[in-house]
Amino acid sequence: MSHNTFGHLFRVTTWGESHGPAIGCVVDGCPPLIPLTEADIQPWLDRRRPGQSRYTTQRREPDAVRILSGVHTDQNGRQVTTGTPIALMIENVDQRSKDYSDISTSYRPGHADYTYEVKYGIRDPRGGGRSSARETAMRVAAGAIARKVVPGLRVRGALVQVGPHRIDPQRWDWDEVDRNPFFCPDATTAELWADFLDGVRKAGSSTGAVVEVVADGVPAGLGAPVYGKLDQDIAAGLMSINAVKGVEIGAGFAAAALSGEDNADEMRMGNDGTVRFLSNNAGGILGGLSTGQPVVARFAVKPTSSILTPRRTVTREGTDAEISTKGRHDPCVGIRAVPVGEAMLAIVIADHYLRHRAQIGR
Amino acid sequence: MSHNTFGHLFRVTTWGESHGPAIGCVVDGCPPLIPLTEADIQPWLDRRRPGQSRYTTQRREPDAVRILSGVHTDQNGRQVTTGTPIALMIENVDQRSKDYSDISTSYRPGHADYTYEVKYGIRDPRGGGRSSARETAMRVAAGAIARKVVPGLRVRGALVQVGPHRIDPQRWDWDEVDRNPFFCPDATTAELWADFLDGVRKAGSSTGAVVEVVADGVPAGLGAPVYGKLDQDIAAGLMSINAVKGVEIGAGFAAAALSGEDNADEMRMGNDGTVRFLSNNAGGILGGLSTGQPVVARFAVKPTSSILTPRRTVTREGTDAEISTKGRHDPCVGIRAVPVGEAMLAIVIADHYLRHRAQIGR
Amino acid sequence: MSHNTFGHLFRVTTWGESHGPAIGCVVDGCPPLIPLTEADIQPWLDRRRPGQSRYTTQRREPDAVRILSGVHTDQNGRQVTTGTPIALMIENVDQRSKDYSDISTSYRPGHADYTYEVKYGIRDPRGGGRSSARETAMRVAAGAIARKVVPGLRVRGALVQVGPHRIDPQRWDWDEVDRNPFFCPDATTAELWADFLDGVRKAGSSTGAVVEVVADGVPAGLGAPVYGKLDQDIAAGLMSINAVKGVEIGAGFAAAALSGEDNADEMRMGNDGTVRFLSNNAGGILGGLSTGQPVVARFAVKPTSSILTPRRTVTREGTDAEISTKGRHDPCVGIRAVPVGEAMLAIVIADHYLRHRAQIGR
Amino acid sequence: MSHNTFGHLFRVTTWGESHGPAIGCVVDGCPPLIPLTEADIQPWLDRRRPGQSRYTTQRREPDAVRILSGVHTDQNGRQVTTGTPIALMIENVDQRSKDYSDISTSYRPGHADYTYEVKYGIRDPRGGGRSSARETAMRVAAGAIARKVVPGLRVRGALVQVGPHRIDPQRWDWDEVDRNPFFCPDATTAELWADFLDGVRKAGSSTGAVVEVVADGVPAGLGAPVYGKLDQDIAAGLMSINAVKGVEIGAGFAAAALSGEDNADEMRMGNDGTVRFLSNNAGGILGGLSTGQPVVARFAVKPTSSILTPRRTVTREGTDAEISTKGRHDPCVGIRAVPVGEAMLAIVIADHYLRHRAQIGR
Repeated sequence: MSHNTFGHLFRVTTWGESHGPAIGCVVDGCPPLIPLTEADIQPWLDRRRPGQSRYTTQRREPDAVRILSGVHTDQNGRQVTTGTPIALMIENVDQRSKDYSDISTSYRPGHADYTYEVKYGIRDPRGGGRSSARETAMRVAAGAIARKVVPGLRVRGALVQVGPHRIDPQRWDWDEVDRNPFFCPDATTAELWADFLDGVRKAGSSTGAVVEVVADGVPAGLGAPVYGKLDQDIAAGLMSINAVKGVEIGAGFAAAALSGEDNADEMRMGNDGTVRFLSNNAGGILGGLSTGQPVVARFAVKPTSSILTPRRTVTREGTDAEISTKGRHDPCVGIRAVPVGEAMLAIVIADHYLRHRAQIGR
Repeated sequence: MSHNTFGHLFRVTTWGESHGPAIGCVVDGCPPLIPLTEADIQPWLDRRRPGQSRYTTQRREPDAVRILSGVHTDQNGRQVTTGTPIALMIENVDQRSKDYSDISTSYRPGHADYTYEVKYGIRDPRGGGRSSARETAMRVAAGAIARKVVPGLRVRGALVQVGPHRIDPQRWDWDEVDRNPFFCPDATTAELWADFLDGVRKAGSSTGAVVEVVADGVPAGLGAPVYGKLDQDIAAGLMSINAVKGVEIGAGFAAAALSGEDNADEMRMGNDGTVRFLSNNAGGILGGLSTGQPVVARFAVKPTSSILTPRRTVTREGTDAEISTKGRHDPCVGIRAVPVGEAMLAIVIADHYLRHRAQIGR
Repeated sequence: MSHNTFGHLFRVTTWGESHGPAIGCVVDGCPPLIPLTEADIQPWLDRRRPGQSRYTTQRREPDAVRILSGVHTDQNGRQVTTGTPIALMIENVDQRSKDYSDISTSYRPGHADYTYEVKYGIRDPRGGGRSSARETAMRVAAGAIARKVVPGLRVRGALVQVGPHRIDPQRWDWDEVDRNPFFCPDATTAELWADFLDGVRKAGSSTGAVVEVVADGVPAGLGAPVYGKLDQDIAAGLMSINAVKGVEIGAGFAAAALSGEDNADEMRMGNDGTVRFLSNNAGGILGGLSTGQPVVARFAVKPTSSILTPRRTVTREGTDAEISTKGRHDPCVGIRAVPVGEAMLAIVIADHYLRHRAQIGR
Repeated sequence: MSHNTFGHLFRVTTWGESHGPAIGCVVDGCPPLIPLTEADIQPWLDRRRPGQSRYTTQRREPDAVRILSGVHTDQNGRQVTTGTPIALMIENVDQRSKDYSDISTSYRPGHADYTYEVKYGIRDPRGGGRSSARETAMRVAAGAIARKVVPGLRVRGALVQVGPHRIDPQRWDWDEVDRNPFFCPDATTAELWADFLDGVRKAGSSTGAVVEVVADGVPAGLGAPVYGKLDQDIAAGLMSINAVKGVEIGAGFAAAALSGEDNADEMRMGNDGTVRFLSNNAGGILGGLSTGQPVVARFAVKPTSSILTPRRTVTREGTDAEISTKGRHDPCVGIRAVPVGEAMLAIVIADHYLRHRAQIGR
């Protein structure tokens, strides 16, 4: 049991606060002999990096990752994993302080600073310590390793809703995802979001969002029927991301309104002699086990509570007060949650791939 | 790591198949000196028991629980926990076989029998082995113990949506929940559901549903900021229930459409000198830690795939086929998921209560 | 984390007290399709069963094991594991009470009843609850399953010291082990022990012992270099047996007196092209990893504290007293520890076999 | 489950190889508000540091530890733990290569390089990767934190045997331990060891040793009766140290030769109204639970296999060969194992202290 470790056999332990000297993680249980250099990890971090558009926080961090252990250069000069723990570290650069005059004496509504102080007896005004989104950089780094553990695995994500505005699934184009600052798979909706988010940003406000993550190439049979369900761990992994308030698999909450006839994915033999599903309401998981179809999950990200509009709150001394957050804002934290959601999905699948191999032997 | 254990310090390990001689569980980590007899557990099992109305499966099981270990009668004649593992067992009575002619050769679309056979190399036509809902009886039994671990804790649940029909939150009445066969908190909607479900049942069809579970009396500060988040474990616990496809906390997916102004729960000092939240979009959890407000979670249950209408499928031999499920049906498995969801929420909170006590010391 | 579970991937959770209705265990993580019936388990339990000679406790228990879950009869009528949790249960038969007049008011020196009451606030005079040796029956049962998980594995044990009398390793004969009531591999020493233990028994006294367990057929490479060391888990497994006060691997404590020249096992190529070690001071483990040689461990069992001679103690009320234990005695609990030690070694090796398979993939 | 984590609630995850840029660890689960600076850790590392006498390896490392996360400066300017993961790091300085010509092609008898290559498919000639004793520096660092978790705890250690030469327990003087380069509690024996080890060193040989570690101030009741035994985890923790081949608690292996009369520690009421034990053969642990007496454990350290004398071995290509290790030697690795054993004992006790608090609530 641990408060800061995720996974059972492919295990990720993260550490570090946004205002300390560095953040890092230890990836334990990775198989040996997998080619791995910083160049395999850095591009995923670059996708998540803040400050790349006016729609995300202006904190500027190069987020240059270093591998401190767990790799080895073989006779052919190729750097590979050794099977020992892989330590990753990113030095914090931009530790510029916000204007903390208000928030050091009052709690921000919707923020963890109140519950933090109740639990730990500590009031850390500088970015919330471990509750900072900065921790998610290490998830992305660990996820880059997880992607290499399962042969043939591809994990992708997209933003599918911003505030009240959803994409049109008919216009879904994976190639579009990297062409706009929102990871939006639908070019038309991306334009609409740009306008909407400009308004949010100028108002010093914020908005929620929904992210969809999809894993192709997941072998059938990963998971277990009761408390080792693949979807159980996906739910845990995605809900563990900051600001996430809901998780669904396949048809998800929409399945509640369906009949058995409409929900169950029918099957036919494919020409290649393998089983083919005619739909994917299951999101690639039946009875906690992967079906071989793409694994599809969605999660809801609430709007950040750091907004300009004054809100009613209380002070540490127990008096009523008002608070507004000045300085850097993040109008839609859901945008940067896309690479983080991908990483968590990859980590869960890598973990279950190893768990499956242990019990089943292949 | 385990495939059949849930929890870290309050740990529940379940075993048994619906067609074996018995099912059971071991509850480990329970504190000593808590009064506990079968009478503390049986009423919760009775609420979940099938065959109590025409809207649930007609399997008839008395579900009489026995405590086999972990209790002791003290000098005052009171039976209390000893701090050692509590073994619970329920003998299976109704093992009447369904008509399995079809389903032993073909896979049921939307059912785990396909993924099961891919993983384990075993084709168990008799009710799906561990994927049977029967396993959830032991969750309810363990949940009854969990309810006693946290002083002042009360966990309740209700069905809030059946097929497309949602309750009206304005008419929510907890007292109503036990007056209808649906755990519905809204008498008017309960009548509507009765008609709707009669139709579903007569058609040999099935429908999905949404359950809401609420925990009052959760102390503030339970949880941890990163991978020990209280909501992370609630998500895992609820998603581990059979047929669940989505989980949300507080405002959940609706938070995606909100602005920061509308989502953040404002705070004021109460007359009694404690902090009061003016709303509960957070569902009682901020930054992974409980706020002291009621913890509110919702989960979506898909319609069962055991329906009369013939569906396209494939046989074990790899040919196309049609299949329909005869015999006992369960038009809305979401109904009986209510006590199961309550139990999982209670187990997660008991576990975090012990985890909190370990690190914080109170 | 659990107080009553042993193992990581091959996990054994035991429950039950010696004076309750039954004892049992759940074996989780066992691979599917392994042939398993009660007949595979019962012979190992019979070896451990008390009351088989005058040198062990006269408690009489048939110890008939039942498999309650996790198996399935395949098309060929063969019962095999399904990959789901295997629940085992043994009903308690001989619950005859000892004369507890003394020991319900005073603590037995060298016994856990004092520490038990300090921890749990409970005074269970009837055999010590979970500290009873009865729990070890379930270890032997689980060990019988573990033996079947690793192809080619053979685990054997022998008693090598009783009181001050050690066997002569030159006379070691595995066939002799089952010909005397002591699991002694040396016929000459067995006769000496018979006399010695008759004296101990008649005096109402007790004696310590040393057990050696050996596993042949352990594949090279099981374990991990740091906290997943094979010998670390063997040490934990053997030390977790009641009354064990020491554990050693290979040369063990004797290695402290050796030089590097004398201790290191030299290597040569065998005629079959495999590496051959010229000695086995390492006990089959180097750097926490198995070498492919037999894994050899030894553990010391203290004499039981239930003896006739009056001993100084204190009462629960805090006054000085004397105590002696009447009723059934066990002059040398080390004898029956032999099958228990074998079982724990088998469980550790099965667990590491699965762990190895997860990370290395074969 | 993890290969590189030790502990359940007080968890230590180590990473790093002796020839990489750094080594480090993450301590998770530490309670908040415990004063902690580098100055609390460095002295313990300095005691373990190599190169301090001619009797240990001449590798020279300043071993300067940095705290990278998990601490916070409070209003009074005092640095305290925050309850979040504490990351520690030590940069490697002395990476001078040995003469590896031999050992890159042949295996060293008694060394892990053979089993390593069998498992991971990797031949790392440069100091054995994770099997290097360098990893133990992080145990000492984590142990320094563990010492602060349990109020009133004091953990000390001493070398009690070098080769065949044991100390005289009658001359035990804790103050002497820090006055000689051997952590020897007996001044007379220390002189004898100096001569003996000079001979070993000049011969390019090595010798085994036995270490004793003692914890005072351990509250009664820590541990659990079955698989959460305090001594079980001590055995695991000490056996996980490099080169350890045996572990014993209290009288240990000597208990095998004792009668029940001689072994059981009698009890009397003390003048202060608390229970007093008249001896401590139990080593402070009965039935897996601490008694309140000092916890006493001993472990055997084998001689290192890196010696000058040529030994028979095989090459990676599968031919017979001879090998001798040139360069830096460590005549008695048992000396530096003293602070490491102390640290592991402290870590186990801190872990059980938190586990006890979780279940018992105080």
